[in-house]
Amino acid sequence: MKAGPSQEEVRQHNLGALLRLVHFDGPTSRAVLATRLGLNRSTILGLVGDLTAAGLVREELPQETGRAGRPSLVVRPESTRVHVLAVDLGVERLAAALIGLGGVFLDRRECPWPDGHPEDPARVAAVLAGFAREMLARAPADSSCVGVAVAVRGIVRHPDGLVSLTPNMGWKGVDFAGAFADRLGLDVPVLVANEANLGALAEHRRGIGRGSQNLVYLHGEIGIGAGVIIDGELLRGERGYAGEVGHMTVNPYRGRPCGCGARGCLEAEAGERALLEAAGRDGRLTGADAVRSVVTAADRGDVTAREALHRVGDWLGIGIANVVNLFDPDLVILGGTLRDVFLGSAAQVRSQINTNALAAVREKLRLRVSELGDDTVLIGAAELAFAEVLTRPLETLTRISEQRQARP
Amino acid sequence: MKAGPSQEEVRQHNLGALLRLVHFDGPTSRAVLATRLGLNRSTILGLVGDLTAAGLVREELPQETGRAGRPSLVVRPESTRVHVLAVDLGVERLAAALIGLGGVFLDRRECPWPDGHPEDPARVAAVLAGFAREMLARAPADSSCVGVAVAVRGIVRHPDGLVSLTPNMGWKGVDFAGAFADRLGLDVPVLVANEANLGALAEHRRGIGRGSQNLVYLHGEIGIGAGVIIDGELLRGERGYAGEVGHMTVNPYRGRPCGCGARGCLEAEAGERALLEAAGRDGRLTGADAVRSVVTAADRGDVTAREALHRVGDWLGIGIANVVNLFDPDLVILGGTLRDVFLGSAAQVRSQINTNALAAVREKLRLRVSELGDDTVLIGAAELAFAEVLTRPLETLTRISEQRQARP
Repeated sequence: MKAGPSQEEVRQHNLGALLRLVHFDGPTSRAVLATRLGLNRSTILGLVGDLTAAGLVREELPQETGRAGRPSLVVRPESTRVHVLAVDLGVERLAAALIGLGGVFLDRRECPWPDGHPEDPARVAAVLAGFAREMLARAPADSSCVGVAVAVRGIVRHPDGLVSLTPNMGWKGVDFAGAFADRLGLDVPVLVANEANLGALAEHRRGIGRGSQNLVYLHGEIGIGAGVIIDGELLRGERGYAGEVGHMTVNPYRGRPCGCGARGCLEAEAGERALLEAAGRDGRLTGADAVRSVVTAADRGDVTAREALHRVGDWLGIGIANVVNLFDPDLVILGGTLRDVFLGSAAQVRSQINTNALAAVREKLRLRVSELGDDTVLIGAAELAFAEVLTRPLETLTRISEQRQARP
Repeated sequence: MKAGPSQEEVRQHNLGALLRLVHFDGPTSRAVLATRLGLNRSTILGLVGDLTAAGLVREELPQETGRAGRPSLVVRPESTRVHVLAVDLGVERLAAALIGLGGVFLDRRECPWPDGHPEDPARVAAVLAGFAREMLARAPADSSCVGVAVAVRGIVRHPDGLVSLTPNMGWKGVDFAGAFADRLGLDVPVLVANEANLGALAEHRRGIGRGSQNLVYLHGEIGIGAGVIIDGELLRGERGYAGEVGHMTVNPYRGRPCGCGARGCLEAEAGERALLEAAGRDGRLTGADAVRSVVTAADRGDVTAREALHRVGDWLGIGIANVVNLFDPDLVILGGTLRDVFLGSAAQVRSQINTNALAAVREKLRLRVSELGDDTVLIGAAELAFAEVLTRPLETLTRISEQRQARP
């Protein structure tokens, strides 16, 4: 801070604060906005006017309140007019969604990975750009896309979004943001981020992590990743690679080999493959359905399935204990296939945490499963894509509009 | 930010920025201050005037520059007039120092722990208050103590500084800040913090970590602790307990028992006791000297000592690999006895990091030993104690002065 912000900067800040409030909490009356933002009602009136003129919010009568008397107007986000494109390069499928301000799913497409060529980013970009064009063509004529974000299962450099490594697709040093932006031809930046980081963002803003300032989100699919929220902000590290909990060594000398080349990594001991092998599955069925089938079999009394879950639960508990000793969060959230694994092995997980986490850090720790289910990552991508317009609403719209007009 | 800061707030902010600059970087000319703070020279003139009037800085001719011409004045911190009391409840000794603005050691006392009663916080407080009185009595009459901070080997709650647990002293839930403040009778708050967190702060501000925004400081004594700097700020976690790397499980089923009750914690495998036992030491000699003697013996060709160091180095490397996979720092600093251990086992440490840390996170990672040596923790305590006056210089002095005048 070299000098104080100008009146205009304060106004931009307040516009963002108001827009974030209705984006996350839904329709809100002016009176409540004034109280929660600590601003007087005439300032709120001006801010709402600006955001309405920009097409970001509108005022309307609230849903039936059941109370007598004339209801006051509420300010609600323009969910159908302002949206982002959220993309998830999942392990089993590609998914894309148009998500409106306020977090409303407006449209959605998904398909299996293109046969034979997962290693070709251009082909993946083409499929997803096709989805995007279909969805954007169906969106209202006066609607506007204000951001694009892509979740990948891998290591993503921050802030430029270069995909350093995705073990399942075999990408190394891929500029997927560039490839996708070229095919999309939209006038908004394309952001790329790691799936567990986006899961953490989603649960923190819209899921079970609302209200927590220090949480760890663990996401399981083939591997295990973590997104860490510290003092309300996503931990990124020096280059964006923080949270690689799946490659935390927990069993170095007798452990199972890991895809990364090491031995006894958490995901080698507690990941999908470890579970399916311990449960005696033959390897043909993989993915979330296969994991669920083990949990279901264990529920029905299948001893091998139950022992497999307990074994994986022990390792998961050791991994969580390590994470809480390091980060001291108040909440650990299990998402992706770890939801199912945890539900089938909670006793083992908790027992290992009790043994291996210090009493002080586990005392008030809450352990919960993801509240947003299969859409966690996609919702996180949408929140990342919305971040700019939620920070500088009018500037962002102006920039997008200028770029559109400048297009040849 | 509900409204923009006032001119007065901007001035307070700039006063802090200027004072921090000369505190950390030493005597600086007004011209350089103007450039580095992005302020014009008349603003700098006013700020320097205010800080000079408050007795926090003074202007003087620089040391001989060797250049021709009239040298310009430099602004330097009033190291002898403004100081803090830094205290270290070490494993082997109690230490206290008076440290002046700019980080100058003005005076220092230390002694072994009071015989027989390490469990008695009041007795420890009394010894240290005695040191403090001696040192303050020798300080110039017009000098002022602006903060007190205490380092403990244990788990400290943030922000109130309650000592939740110190394994070596047997303290549980001890308000040492209160006990020490009562005996000191100074009009400044007493802060208490974990030794590894303070070590991280010291290396980040004054040691090998200057310029790094994401670093991990590992401190070894009996146990192993970590202080983590993320985006330039100390990681604390929900309650202040973050960084308990010593209790990260790395060898859960065949590991050595740990003082915390678990098995295979990093400090059980790579801590002082593990090293001394593996080196065949009989347990009578402990502490930093004992660790150094193993490193020295290994240097001289003692095979048992060398194998012990290699074994401990392997575990230390696994621990560091886990930490870098989680935090993605650009720098890991080894302090306390881990300096010596690392110097005697660097090949093992690096080899395990190469095996167990992901290529992306280890690619640009630097591994260094502490630059501040045995004083790291005490310097960190001083920086914590200085934090308030460096943030709000004039307000802090005014508050201290008012409290002094109000004293009965």
